[in-house]
Amino acid sequence: MFQSFTEAEQMEGKIITLTTDFGLRDPYAAEMKAAILGICPAATIIDVTHEVEKFNVRMGAYILASAARHFPKGTIHVAVVDPEVGTQRPPLLIQTNNGFLIGPDNGLIALASEREGIVEVRQITNRRLMLPQVSNTFHGRDLFAPAAAHVANGVPPEEFGPVACDFMRPNFARITLSGTTLMGEVLYVDGFGNVITNISEKDLTQLQLKRGSLTLNARELQFEICKTYGENKPHQFLTLIGSHGYLEIAVNQGNAAEKLGAEVGDKITLEKT
Amino acid sequence: MFQSFTEAEQMEGKIITLTTDFGLRDPYAAEMKAAILGICPAATIIDVTHEVEKFNVRMGAYILASAARHFPKGTIHVAVVDPEVGTQRPPLLIQTNNGFLIGPDNGLIALASEREGIVEVRQITNRRLMLPQVSNTFHGRDLFAPAAAHVANGVPPEEFGPVACDFMRPNFARITLSGTTLMGEVLYVDGFGNVITNISEKDLTQLQLKRGSLTLNARELQFEICKTYGENKPHQFLTLIGSHGYLEIAVNQGNAAEKLGAEVGDKITLEKT
Amino acid sequence: MFQSFTEAEQMEGKIITLTTDFGLRDPYAAEMKAAILGICPAATIIDVTHEVEKFNVRMGAYILASAARHFPKGTIHVAVVDPEVGTQRPPLLIQTNNGFLIGPDNGLIALASEREGIVEVRQITNRRLMLPQVSNTFHGRDLFAPAAAHVANGVPPEEFGPVACDFMRPNFARITLSGTTLMGEVLYVDGFGNVITNISEKDLTQLQLKRGSLTLNARELQFEICKTYGENKPHQFLTLIGSHGYLEIAVNQGNAAEKLGAEVGDKITLEKT
Repeated sequence: MFQSFTEAEQMEGKIITLTTDFGLRDPYAAEMKAAILGICPAATIIDVTHEVEKFNVRMGAYILASAARHFPKGTIHVAVVDPEVGTQRPPLLIQTNNGFLIGPDNGLIALASEREGIVEVRQITNRRLMLPQVSNTFHGRDLFAPAAAHVANGVPPEEFGPVACDFMRPNFARITLSGTTLMGEVLYVDGFGNVITNISEKDLTQLQLKRGSLTLNARELQFEICKTYGENKPHQFLTLIGSHGYLEIAVNQGNAAEKLGAEVGDKITLEKT
Repeated sequence: MFQSFTEAEQMEGKIITLTTDFGLRDPYAAEMKAAILGICPAATIIDVTHEVEKFNVRMGAYILASAARHFPKGTIHVAVVDPEVGTQRPPLLIQTNNGFLIGPDNGLIALASEREGIVEVRQITNRRLMLPQVSNTFHGRDLFAPAAAHVANGVPPEEFGPVACDFMRPNFARITLSGTTLMGEVLYVDGFGNVITNISEKDLTQLQLKRGSLTLNARELQFEICKTYGENKPHQFLTLIGSHGYLEIAVNQGNAAEKLGAEVGDKITLEKT
Repeated sequence: MFQSFTEAEQMEGKIITLTTDFGLRDPYAAEMKAAILGICPAATIIDVTHEVEKFNVRMGAYILASAARHFPKGTIHVAVVDPEVGTQRPPLLIQTNNGFLIGPDNGLIALASEREGIVEVRQITNRRLMLPQVSNTFHGRDLFAPAAAHVANGVPPEEFGPVACDFMRPNFARITLSGTTLMGEVLYVDGFGNVITNISEKDLTQLQLKRGSLTLNARELQFEICKTYGENKPHQFLTLIGSHGYLEIAVNQGNAAEKLGAEVGDKITLEKT
């Protein structure tokens, strides 16, 4: 076998990823990297994205959850979409079966955490593991990035702060089932215009739902789960399980979201036929 | 001498570059990096760009060819602009005189390959060198990125699959010569509005063409090859050989493409005078 | 103490940052990285930004100065916003108390240099420390990036060229004081719409100015320096010292620049009350 998970595991969490709404013009993402390298010079820093829509916690949560599962064991994910920075919302360090997630307690890291399997949740309160001066406006650089770097250096979770009894769990990943009708919603629209729902492959398998009718924005489509974008004719709708594990509506070489007028949060209904 | 090519060569192909149309918001580029680091944790991953226009193979081919020639010997370039993902187009591994190119067989990596000098072309068919589960929609992560990581780990090309007898060669790099008239086309318009043509410095040298008249979009300009953007007055047209080795029409501190209404694919004619 | 400045210092300048107006689609930023890795394969390259507005030296200077102060000692910052590339403006290498700054002599690196504390300024004239072929249009790749890589390799500043007696200092960081009235200007508008002025925390402390009236674009606001974005009601103006050390006008969960019609260069007046 060529896949060297052991080699990746030897890195022991030296990969740190960043997911933020800071954009790519402002110096903020670079300042987080500066803070990391000042504490853990050997870290491999990978941008998941800095283009989360400003303050859109749900979008950040989806992108992070989608990316996190593909990283090697021990990876440390830092996420900052934080409209309430400097107020009372506590900073969290969540240990999962696959690695660590660090971010504000606003649902941003909860989706990925639950998918990875939560081992322990802690609040970050230890000032010695933050930058010497913590600004009130930029916890990404002064608190979250340093925490990640210290985890990469091998500082154990219990040094960061007390176990958090509870934390905010987003409800945008919930689906409902009523008879043979499955109701979910649009979780994300990607840059290709693919409409990604919160209905997982597991949900469909449990219902043995491979074809039927799909309603979104008062539009009804007959669907059958395909395997590739190229499987249908160009410019036709198709449904498939995307590489992220969710039901996705796409248009072969076209933009499904535009054709459907679909936006994040739109309700979607599947009816088995 | 300070230029340490030997030091770069010692790295033996540990640099992996990425050129895609995935954009910077979606998690896809990060997922490719995750796949690479899971197999080759020591890889140095460099983004060439993820902002190729969606499905624009020609644009991706130009950007990759322009960047590739500047990387150290042994660099592995992965490119994914792949409207036909999941269909029959074969994935390729091309070894050149300078390194490796990996991508779909749709012309995307052919331009760079020909400029670097092709040593051998192989199809990638060995499932053991892909991720354990290969999705039908995301070969960038499941097939191309792992292939690059395995090359970086020293897996020899012959392990990936059979020699490919033929592959798709793009025709957008072809120029024609008729008497003293040279006909080419616009290959790329960069972010500064510089209009980059497919006419190379070598073409002009062979014709001893240093000045003359240039026609683009029914507009005729007298030209003389300059050396710098600052050489002409501000807001005037100038022509020069860009750092990529091609004839380029620019406007000193201005936007040539806007002034000319020039777009990729427009025909250009040079007449020696 | 967990903050390991000594470990960072052991890296001895192996971090190289890039600040340019090249954008993220064109291959130019990647070509700079290629040039660096060809000379110093072990460099850790960090993008500050490539999204400086084209030719906007002031914007580049602010972003660089804001980011630079957070990087570990010994970091080498390369900046290229260079409308006059290929003309007579000399390339500079500035050594500061914290590291090195490399870029054209047009004010771009002066703001950061002055904040970091200038040790020595040199012109870069040694052709052996550039790429073998220096194009007239792309000094970022052919001259500035190689210089950074050679500094990272330990080449001492005196090898690069003669001491520069003078260099261009930007005047956009100057404020004026008249009685109890402080006059400055808008230095930057970030992606959140926060309006960042050139009035520093030090200026305000010297004047013991904590509240008063603020005039910008003929609009007068009563202000009191807050500590966090969340301190005021949503959609209300607030003023605070940003994480970059400058007075900033923000709107809690809103866009201050839009509300004020504020742009870079606008004059701002503070009156103590």
